[in-house]
Amino acid sequence: MVTLLERVGWFAIYGTTVQAVLLLLFMAFVQYSNVPGRTLTNHTGATDATSEAGLNVYPSKHTLLHPTPPVLGDIQVMILVGFGFLMTFLRRYGHSALGLTLLLTSLALQISLLLEGVSSTTATGTITITIHSLLNGNFASAACLISLGAVLGRTSPTQLLFLVLLEVPVYTLNAHLCLNVLGIVDHGGSIVIHMFGAFFGLGFSKFVTRSMILMPHPKASSTATSDTFSMIGTLFLWVYWPSFNAVLVEGAAARNRAVLNTYLALLGSTFCTFVFSSWVHVRGKWTMTHVQNATLAGGVGVGAVAGLILYPWGALLLGCSAGMLSTLSYIYLQASLFSRTFLLAVSLDRGRAVSEVMIGAVCWQRLLEIKLGLQDTCGVLHLHGLPGVFSACVSIGAALFASLTTFGDELFQQYPLMAPTNTSTLAELEPPVVVAPGEGRSAVHQALFQLLATGVTLLLAVVAGAVSGFAVTFPSCQRLARPQQYNDALWWEEGDEEESEIPTIAPALDVDFPKLFSVQVAHGETGRRPSNVRNGM
Amino acid sequence: MVTLLERVGWFAIYGTTVQAVLLLLFMAFVQYSNVPGRTLTNHTGATDATSEAGLNVYPSKHTLLHPTPPVLGDIQVMILVGFGFLMTFLRRYGHSALGLTLLLTSLALQISLLLEGVSSTTATGTITITIHSLLNGNFASAACLISLGAVLGRTSPTQLLFLVLLEVPVYTLNAHLCLNVLGIVDHGGSIVIHMFGAFFGLGFSKFVTRSMILMPHPKASSTATSDTFSMIGTLFLWVYWPSFNAVLVEGAAARNRAVLNTYLALLGSTFCTFVFSSWVHVRGKWTMTHVQNATLAGGVGVGAVAGLILYPWGALLLGCSAGMLSTLSYIYLQASLFSRTFLLAVSLDRGRAVSEVMIGAVCWQRLLEIKLGLQDTCGVLHLHGLPGVFSACVSIGAALFASLTTFGDELFQQYPLMAPTNTSTLAELEPPVVVAPGEGRSAVHQALFQLLATGVTLLLAVVAGAVSGFAVTFPSCQRLARPQQYNDALWWEEGDEEESEIPTIAPALDVDFPKLFSVQVAHGETGRRPSNVRNGM
Amino acid sequence: MVTLLERVGWFAIYGTTVQAVLLLLFMAFVQYSNVPGRTLTNHTGATDATSEAGLNVYPSKHTLLHPTPPVLGDIQVMILVGFGFLMTFLRRYGHSALGLTLLLTSLALQISLLLEGVSSTTATGTITITIHSLLNGNFASAACLISLGAVLGRTSPTQLLFLVLLEVPVYTLNAHLCLNVLGIVDHGGSIVIHMFGAFFGLGFSKFVTRSMILMPHPKASSTATSDTFSMIGTLFLWVYWPSFNAVLVEGAAARNRAVLNTYLALLGSTFCTFVFSSWVHVRGKWTMTHVQNATLAGGVGVGAVAGLILYPWGALLLGCSAGMLSTLSYIYLQASLFSRTFLLAVSLDRGRAVSEVMIGAVCWQRLLEIKLGLQDTCGVLHLHGLPGVFSACVSIGAALFASLTTFGDELFQQYPLMAPTNTSTLAELEPPVVVAPGEGRSAVHQALFQLLATGVTLLLAVVAGAVSGFAVTFPSCQRLARPQQYNDALWWEEGDEEESEIPTIAPALDVDFPKLFSVQVAHGETGRRPSNVRNGM
Repeated sequence: MVTLLERVGWFAIYGTTVQAVLLLLFMAFVQYSNVPGRTLTNHTGATDATSEAGLNVYPSKHTLLHPTPPVLGDIQVMILVGFGFLMTFLRRYGHSALGLTLLLTSLALQISLLLEGVSSTTATGTITITIHSLLNGNFASAACLISLGAVLGRTSPTQLLFLVLLEVPVYTLNAHLCLNVLGIVDHGGSIVIHMFGAFFGLGFSKFVTRSMILMPHPKASSTATSDTFSMIGTLFLWVYWPSFNAVLVEGAAARNRAVLNTYLALLGSTFCTFVFSSWVHVRGKWTMTHVQNATLAGGVGVGAVAGLILYPWGALLLGCSAGMLSTLSYIYLQASLFSRTFLLAVSLDRGRAVSEVMIGAVCWQRLLEIKLGLQDTCGVLHLHGLPGVFSACVSIGAALFASLTTFGDELFQQYPLMAPTNTSTLAELEPPVVVAPGEGRSAVHQALFQLLATGVTLLLAVVAGAVSGFAVTFPSCQRLARPQQYNDALWWEEGDEEESEIPTIAPALDVDFPKLFSVQVAHGETGRRPSNVRNGM
Repeated sequence: MVTLLERVGWFAIYGTTVQAVLLLLFMAFVQYSNVPGRTLTNHTGATDATSEAGLNVYPSKHTLLHPTPPVLGDIQVMILVGFGFLMTFLRRYGHSALGLTLLLTSLALQISLLLEGVSSTTATGTITITIHSLLNGNFASAACLISLGAVLGRTSPTQLLFLVLLEVPVYTLNAHLCLNVLGIVDHGGSIVIHMFGAFFGLGFSKFVTRSMILMPHPKASSTATSDTFSMIGTLFLWVYWPSFNAVLVEGAAARNRAVLNTYLALLGSTFCTFVFSSWVHVRGKWTMTHVQNATLAGGVGVGAVAGLILYPWGALLLGCSAGMLSTLSYIYLQASLFSRTFLLAVSLDRGRAVSEVMIGAVCWQRLLEIKLGLQDTCGVLHLHGLPGVFSACVSIGAALFASLTTFGDELFQQYPLMAPTNTSTLAELEPPVVVAPGEGRSAVHQALFQLLATGVTLLLAVVAGAVSGFAVTFPSCQRLARPQQYNDALWWEEGDEEESEIPTIAPALDVDFPKLFSVQVAHGETGRRPSNVRNGM
Repeated sequence: MVTLLERVGWFAIYGTTVQAVLLLLFMAFVQYSNVPGRTLTNHTGATDATSEAGLNVYPSKHTLLHPTPPVLGDIQVMILVGFGFLMTFLRRYGHSALGLTLLLTSLALQISLLLEGVSSTTATGTITITIHSLLNGNFASAACLISLGAVLGRTSPTQLLFLVLLEVPVYTLNAHLCLNVLGIVDHGGSIVIHMFGAFFGLGFSKFVTRSMILMPHPKASSTATSDTFSMIGTLFLWVYWPSFNAVLVEGAAARNRAVLNTYLALLGSTFCTFVFSSWVHVRGKWTMTHVQNATLAGGVGVGAVAGLILYPWGALLLGCSAGMLSTLSYIYLQASLFSRTFLLAVSLDRGRAVSEVMIGAVCWQRLLEIKLGLQDTCGVLHLHGLPGVFSACVSIGAALFASLTTFGDELFQQYPLMAPTNTSTLAELEPPVVVAPGEGRSAVHQALFQLLATGVTLLLAVVAGAVSGFAVTFPSCQRLARPQQYNDALWWEEGDEEESEIPTIAPALDVDFPKLFSVQVAHGETGRRPSNVRNGM
């Protein structure tokens, strides 16, 4: 066994086991919703049954009209192209960013398909999956990829396998709790996806790399080319964010509003990010990190309330605020490192350089790093975490002011648990509304539930993230030493040849060998001694 | 005030003001179309009311069926990913191309949402916005981005803010004039979007950089990598161009034809661009600029008449012609610089080099530059301007030959103002047609109106562009001196680090400071003296 | 004529001729389906008539509802962005990969529109084209682009023009034969598109570059940047593959299943590719080539049976198997070069290096190269060829077990030729099924037909590919000598300037001339002597 382990590494062994188990579970439990035998028996109940699970509030009949509902494609582009390329900004970690996005998505979706079914299991014990389930699986993947953003470059693939294995169940539980048990409104998943994913990732990050780091990693920076690649992710996330926020909304009018609100919020956050990024920079320049990330904060900020009646100016204002909040979060949590670097700076340049350091754009979140020992590679706190919290607060306020006068007959569609408990009351309304009876919550009650869900999500995310981060530090998870971080060459056969010029015509072996050796030597120096991280994986 | 200005720069001040004003205007006037109160009162009229504005001929009921109408996503991809990446071909200006695309789009869309509503204002003074309005806003953004293409790299963000502020109103006015007052057919917006945007940009370009330039800017060239990034834009524009041309067309059959015609035109222009690019090159090679741009000329060329009955060969021929026209425009307006560079060339290489210069692909539009003092960074004259004029001519011809025998009962759907003035005449037709009464225009009349609209658009675009270009040369708009052009480093904190190798492990300050200083010194040399262009912005 | 030829090159002459002939053919034969005159006469038959052709099993009425059916856009993204960028992995051939994708697609679509119509020609001799035809044209393009992948970098554009001219007719004939005459099930085109395209390309490759190559070409490798560009293609292919597999499927339930099955298969192949790539690598690393390609093998592997009832675990298992098969195919056909390189390796490193060579990821398919003299630039055998054969085998097995108990009333929808010959038998079924009468095939019969179609496709592809490859070696097709391979600079005016730094400010002529000359000299050395390949083309 030791030899096999030496030979293939932990990743391959864990990966094979996980896929084999998943395959067996699929074999035992999972079934389509629309095989001939089933559609006859529970003819009407089938789609309703599945819609009880997780985030299933997307109108099910839609899934039958299109070969692929266009929205599924939109969201898949966001997950793979959007998140994948957004994370390619590191100068030596682009391949890993894209590869890990594919790897984690393929695992998270499989687990999510299984877990989501647990709540929708029929009497016969089978789990039915629909195109719907794929949407929900993608939301679970989104949460995992956000968490990945916090630790990108500082974790091994083996550790990330465990991240997914641990995060998806907690995510599914939390989403079920918030949306189905507490009955909160969170149209775009700002609470259950963005906030959850960000704080899970931060908790994970805190415990997975526990050493205090005082200076930035030399490879933790970007190049002009890697920043341009990253913009591919930004632009596709921007374009399809309205779909993301609208897909969970009930009712055509509300879904329409969700698209409009998300657009307006994105417009606001985009413009304000440019203005603020320039405003806070000592020479009025923009910072690529802000443009890549904070422009999208409007989508997160408006997420929890996307389909509600915010009025166009409200959505625009939300977006502007979220964009500013995100930009300031990127800046302010960095600028506070001033006190510490002040002396160094003065000794170097006397006065002028100080202002550079004070306000200038620094790539890494040093306040977090220095005060909390917390590293956050992609700044998920600034893009997903704080805007998510902001969106949660807005959703509490929105619930407080929800009334029949604002929403008309849409009120009970948007807040189904605010509907009266008995149908006779509903019939007395003018005009009479046809909705299922709810719990008769008041607006204040609903707001309290929103608050409760926010707290539960925050708590669950941080605790579960920290526990997971602690768990993956046991030896066979292959912790990375600092020199191994942010480096494609550790995981990829071909990751280190960017500088190499076209080789002159030479025998094949001459071309290949030097590269292989040099990598090997590098490993010999750094990776071999800690003994667990051998040869990459 | 001077200190604040020194500190934050004009861009941040103007940007904040603009966003604040827009927010107030939204607060005062803008409303959804489908809030409960409204849908009840003007139950049937609501959607009709909005469809009177600008380019609102997309079937409104469609917007209720989908969370995001797929076509809006397609067009948003074209605007952000398509135009954005198409402009990344410059070796040192990729970040700015993408950033400015986001910035200008987010501003143009907001202004357009307000302006478009002016014509659809209800009695209560509110402006209703729908998903429809977002489509129209994207068309306005397209015009602005085309104009941006003409001056890319030679303007400051502050100047471009004013470009958008000045162009969107003129665009909206012109589109309203052409489509609603003159009643012309322009399905894909070749006249009101492409031609308008290109000539506005050229007028702007003429006056914004007024110095005669005899030699190309050293940074105004591309690299293999930047050309590959640019192809991302080309391919996404290609793929979604049929959606762009079809979305404005009335009637399912005509919309179908618009897709087919645009496809055929794109196929023709793509193939012909390769053939012609090779044909005119002295060694039969292709030029990347042609492939990036002229392949798309078919979409512009067929635009004005996309939904009409062109016959498949007609659409294919239009595409081939547009592709050739665009390629030749790129080539011929350059080759004419022969007479001027002849002597220099002879002195260098005697005979052989001359043929290189004569026909070989030169990156910049030197005829325009030398004869007219006109610079056009992306060649929008060749991709949008001339193919737009070509499309306008075709639309005049198409109107001349429009008759009931060709179009059948679709005639009055495509040319609504050609319908008889009284309904009784309509009822007498065989088969009887159900359309609104029009103005009873003859085919010749319609053609004259198409001609008139073309002339009005050209005139308005050039004059308004020139005036805008002249306007943004006042000091606080931050004109750029020549050494500041085409340079990301002036606007971006991280734009100049491509060459830098991975820094060795060193204290953080050592890593950051040299870069910051070197930029500062560069500015001290070039930017400080003209005194208005300070520190980037 | 000689002077003209000298001047413009064969490509321009052939290209012009081809486009002119196509234009004449379009003029003579092609018509819309929905011009006024036609929709009135064959009111009901029009759409049915077109659906007899090639792969026309996409529900026709759908094409009338949307401006662009979303699925057409999805598939167009796959063809242009997906295949185009997937092939940009070569360090000096990115522009050609993208340019050739555009060029070949624009030609293949035009030819396909004509050819497909031959079978749907009405009595009047006209060919009707619909949005449908564009879908089929894209499938033909896909086959051509797969074939291009096999010979990328080793063929001239002129040779590739002939590749398309020869492949599209054979493809159309084979697809018609398999789908309409033999009546096989091949939902995602794994047999008629992927397998056909791959083996056509391999046959072509064998004969187009007939020299035995013992060592890899120095430019036939990738850089970190080119590999990242390639991932754009991978991700977009991944995202839209479910649309590709589902678009041909009859019936909403089956189309739904096709999406689910393809997703599950992609999830399986993606995860298993990572696991296996790590498993077989000596140090447990991943290989970029595997991730770029083998992750997609699930889409090919499940293709032929995408809409059938595979059960979720079946689809997942299929995907895992296809991913492993593809990864092993990439590895194993390389590892076998061991015997040949063993001695060299030993002499260099004694023991350790040998294991590197044995199992380590080597870029090129050396077994194929050395044993069969077969080169396969993109590894289409491993991504499309073998997974296609695998999918064909699965489709044979699936047909064997197809029965009324599994499929219920969907059986005759999926296998229409298994329906009884007379309608009375259908009426006797419980519940009664409304389908057209078929041929009354048994399951075994259907399986034999699937087997027959696989054999026919393989044979036709290899033979036609070989003949085509042999045909394009006549002089005017411009065969490439080895030093001319994998080099953008031969075809593109601006392909060779990646290394050049920003030139200092200098007169324009100084900047341009050195580049032009250096290219010219390079050609003088390599390209001039073989006399046919002059100046690029």
